[in-house]
Amino acid sequence: MNDQPQFGMSKRDLLAMIGKSAGATAMLMAMAPLGQAHASTFTGPIKLDGGAKGKSVLILGAGVAGLVAALELERAGYAVKVLEYNPKVGGRAWTLKGGDSYTELGGAAQTCQFSAGNYINPGPWRIPTEHGGLIHYCQMLGVGLEPFQQNNYNAYLHSTQAFGGKPQRYKTIQADYYGHVSELLAKAVKSSALDDAVTAEDAEILLESLRSWGALDADMRYVRGRQSATRRGWDKGPGGGLTAEPIPSDPLDLATVLKSGLWRSIGGHLSNEHQHAIFQPVGGMGEIARGFERAVGHLVRVNSKVTAIRQGESGVTVSFEDTRSGEKLTAQADYCICTIPLSILSQIEMNVGPKMAAAIRAVPYSPSVKVGLEFKRRFWEQDEQIYGGITSTDLPIGTISYPSFGYGTPGPAALLGAYSGGAYAYELTSLPPEKRIEKVLEWGAQIHPQYKTEFVSGIAVAWHRVPWVQGCFGQWNDQSRATHYKNLCEIDGRIALAGEHASYIGGWQEGSVTSALDAIERLHKLVQAA
Amino acid sequence: MNDQPQFGMSKRDLLAMIGKSAGATAMLMAMAPLGQAHASTFTGPIKLDGGAKGKSVLILGAGVAGLVAALELERAGYAVKVLEYNPKVGGRAWTLKGGDSYTELGGAAQTCQFSAGNYINPGPWRIPTEHGGLIHYCQMLGVGLEPFQQNNYNAYLHSTQAFGGKPQRYKTIQADYYGHVSELLAKAVKSSALDDAVTAEDAEILLESLRSWGALDADMRYVRGRQSATRRGWDKGPGGGLTAEPIPSDPLDLATVLKSGLWRSIGGHLSNEHQHAIFQPVGGMGEIARGFERAVGHLVRVNSKVTAIRQGESGVTVSFEDTRSGEKLTAQADYCICTIPLSILSQIEMNVGPKMAAAIRAVPYSPSVKVGLEFKRRFWEQDEQIYGGITSTDLPIGTISYPSFGYGTPGPAALLGAYSGGAYAYELTSLPPEKRIEKVLEWGAQIHPQYKTEFVSGIAVAWHRVPWVQGCFGQWNDQSRATHYKNLCEIDGRIALAGEHASYIGGWQEGSVTSALDAIERLHKLVQAA
Repeated sequence: MNDQPQFGMSKRDLLAMIGKSAGATAMLMAMAPLGQAHASTFTGPIKLDGGAKGKSVLILGAGVAGLVAALELERAGYAVKVLEYNPKVGGRAWTLKGGDSYTELGGAAQTCQFSAGNYINPGPWRIPTEHGGLIHYCQMLGVGLEPFQQNNYNAYLHSTQAFGGKPQRYKTIQADYYGHVSELLAKAVKSSALDDAVTAEDAEILLESLRSWGALDADMRYVRGRQSATRRGWDKGPGGGLTAEPIPSDPLDLATVLKSGLWRSIGGHLSNEHQHAIFQPVGGMGEIARGFERAVGHLVRVNSKVTAIRQGESGVTVSFEDTRSGEKLTAQADYCICTIPLSILSQIEMNVGPKMAAAIRAVPYSPSVKVGLEFKRRFWEQDEQIYGGITSTDLPIGTISYPSFGYGTPGPAALLGAYSGGAYAYELTSLPPEKRIEKVLEWGAQIHPQYKTEFVSGIAVAWHRVPWVQGCFGQWNDQSRATHYKNLCEIDGRIALAGEHASYIGGWQEGSVTSALDAIERLHKLVQAA
Repeated sequence: MNDQPQFGMSKRDLLAMIGKSAGATAMLMAMAPLGQAHASTFTGPIKLDGGAKGKSVLILGAGVAGLVAALELERAGYAVKVLEYNPKVGGRAWTLKGGDSYTELGGAAQTCQFSAGNYINPGPWRIPTEHGGLIHYCQMLGVGLEPFQQNNYNAYLHSTQAFGGKPQRYKTIQADYYGHVSELLAKAVKSSALDDAVTAEDAEILLESLRSWGALDADMRYVRGRQSATRRGWDKGPGGGLTAEPIPSDPLDLATVLKSGLWRSIGGHLSNEHQHAIFQPVGGMGEIARGFERAVGHLVRVNSKVTAIRQGESGVTVSFEDTRSGEKLTAQADYCICTIPLSILSQIEMNVGPKMAAAIRAVPYSPSVKVGLEFKRRFWEQDEQIYGGITSTDLPIGTISYPSFGYGTPGPAALLGAYSGGAYAYELTSLPPEKRIEKVLEWGAQIHPQYKTEFVSGIAVAWHRVPWVQGCFGQWNDQSRATHYKNLCEIDGRIALAGEHASYIGGWQEGSVTSALDAIERLHKLVQAA
């Protein structure tokens, strides 16, 4: 409570200002409404006016895209049916809790052994404020949101190549990087090296700002002292009574910070999709699936494996197999919204034009592996004061994410012990699940030695072995996007595609939401025009 | 889920590395235990061994310092009694909810009209990860902690002197400041202006880091484009389907960012006490009072106004008045821990030496005013996508803090509408509560025009009018600290002082906790030595 601004304003200034404020308010009231801050295209609930003209829509896939389409099309009056391969809805909006089973391609089966209340989200795990579409549906469906600790200054940055492999607190690396950057820039400004880029007037403000932001001392140096310690941490923190006086710590020198490479992790927290506020559903991402199930579960036929999609002049016919009975069936509708991941769809017979067909084949799927680990106790909180947040490492595990709920509770807790991509993910995918967990424990113990004694159980999801997606998410690049994206999204006859793969927000559920809304809006226009 | 690190490592590199990892782990295991990250002196539960030797301690004040002392001294075997002026324990660990009444100096009475579940904390409102002592007691006492959104990139920075008074999103100001700082420093590095400060090898890494951290383009410029938009926000965000392609926004130029002064608010989020993770007690800061009450409420005599503190050879005698009955009473003990704020203690007769007496008179108390406002709905979430966090302004209100709980819930919600300090606080204190609220509404409406139509009720606490503290917290400066701090904390005969005022963490409850622990530790040593 001691950080309130200290105002230098006199009583006279204050009263003059109060006098002005009514006018200023009136001015603001007359201005345009405050801008939406959504980073996605979602700006509010979709409106599908004009009626459904008695038309039916068959939706393939009951992930977030399919479920959004089902919910909104049924509301608009369409006859809606959804076919889903899995025995439950949700797709990658998926949570593994104690008792949940999962069998991957190749047949390896795992049953999650976590205690009640603990879980991991193998797929999406965070909901940025920016993702207004998904937040809208969470609120509509009664899915509670709680803060996800994205950027925890007490979590670690770790490199096997720096500091003898000893993890560093995020705050020390960031503080030292900012301190040195500000000191260097101040030096350049004062040496007149930037006179053509900064006016004398601005240079003065810039120097003031660098001192404040970079925690520089009165001589514009980033050195051991109160200013730097307030950012990077103290050698001995402040307290009360006679043992109270704090002892500052020694900043790392510029070369050490730069050569460590740990600065790479600072920028990651600054992007729109990782900026606070950022949320997670209370109870795991599967709660989004449960919310949609309550709303549109009655429209979904589960255990239905689509084998062919054929459109003709009068409608769309989808062949599918009941995965329990083996029975071969068909479903028909006037239109089809297909949300099947491209990795699977490219293996299914479908009579669309060459452009869409080429687009479907153009998008490789990201490999990634997530491993959840349960431990006997929250040693990261109890021993290391890390309450949620993410540790980053150059080890193959990539990431350790501590649970953003249940802070301070006794008993076992689960963390995300690995979120691997690229070559490491392929490597881990090639191992059987129990070996993946073994490796992850071995690597993670380099950061948290407590792994050795506190481990209870683990579960490993390698996305290239998830039978119904065979990859984590579609990976576009600028070239494939330029050639194929529009062709993927354009409605082909009676078939529209939707899903994160048909979006510019790949790998995030907001891509699925906005893609579904865009697809059904265009389909609805088609119906209106017909 | 698309931010996983992309590894360029070959399978051979990977296997080589995995081979090394066992050795690295073994090395780390042999290293010293991981350092504590507490920023305070608290490193673990206090141990008062050796017994209480049949001694008694009278504690004055049942705020956090007094309650910690009571709890630990009773555990150690002392006969403990606490006198508290208020009708309840907790002191400044105080929450105002619907139905709560509060009468300030001068007689103005307010009853909080908030709906069930809404509240404000007039005093301390946040618990940084760094404050390990307070977190320890919260966990011991069963006080739930939930994240406080300190740094919300979607909240506003506002200046009456910039952007025509239009509030700016935090993220745009920070992104543009970082972008320009990194572009300028890159320019200086490339112009060789810093050759004496940065080696050629480091300069190369520095440039790479500036591009990554500052969101610069390939030519090391901070300009309109994908990189900058990913930080500052898009003109039109990315989405799905055919309306998906995002449109970047135009960065502000350097002069505009600098002259706005809004960069001042960036540094504030970087200090130890404001770094994520940072918490609040579930249900308000008063829950800490309730927790202590469950543990040591039986030791406290409430409604007891201390009028004199006298020590002699055989013990301490405290005169007090029952504020309900008017009865004049005394209490006696071998020792006294006095946690009464210095602003009040300086008005009470007490026979301590001249050094402690001078120290007690040396510390002025900070003025500050907090105003809670309840509105019909969470317009900051619904209209502006601000989920918790803090808007900063140069208006006299200083701060608007949105509730960090109940995200997305319908119905009325309360926010902190003002946290004023300095001259503004004196000004607001001079007004009757209803006028304070009126002013705060008028100012706040410059940022949120919705104030005009959505307001329900408010409550205003001006700390200089809070009868039992007459100020917000003790304000030390370097000079008073050098002259008086040690004298304030040294035990004077049988009397030891404790509280945030007897700490280096003024205005935070951690100061009270560590001060109390330090005082009782020394008192206990005295008893052991006697």
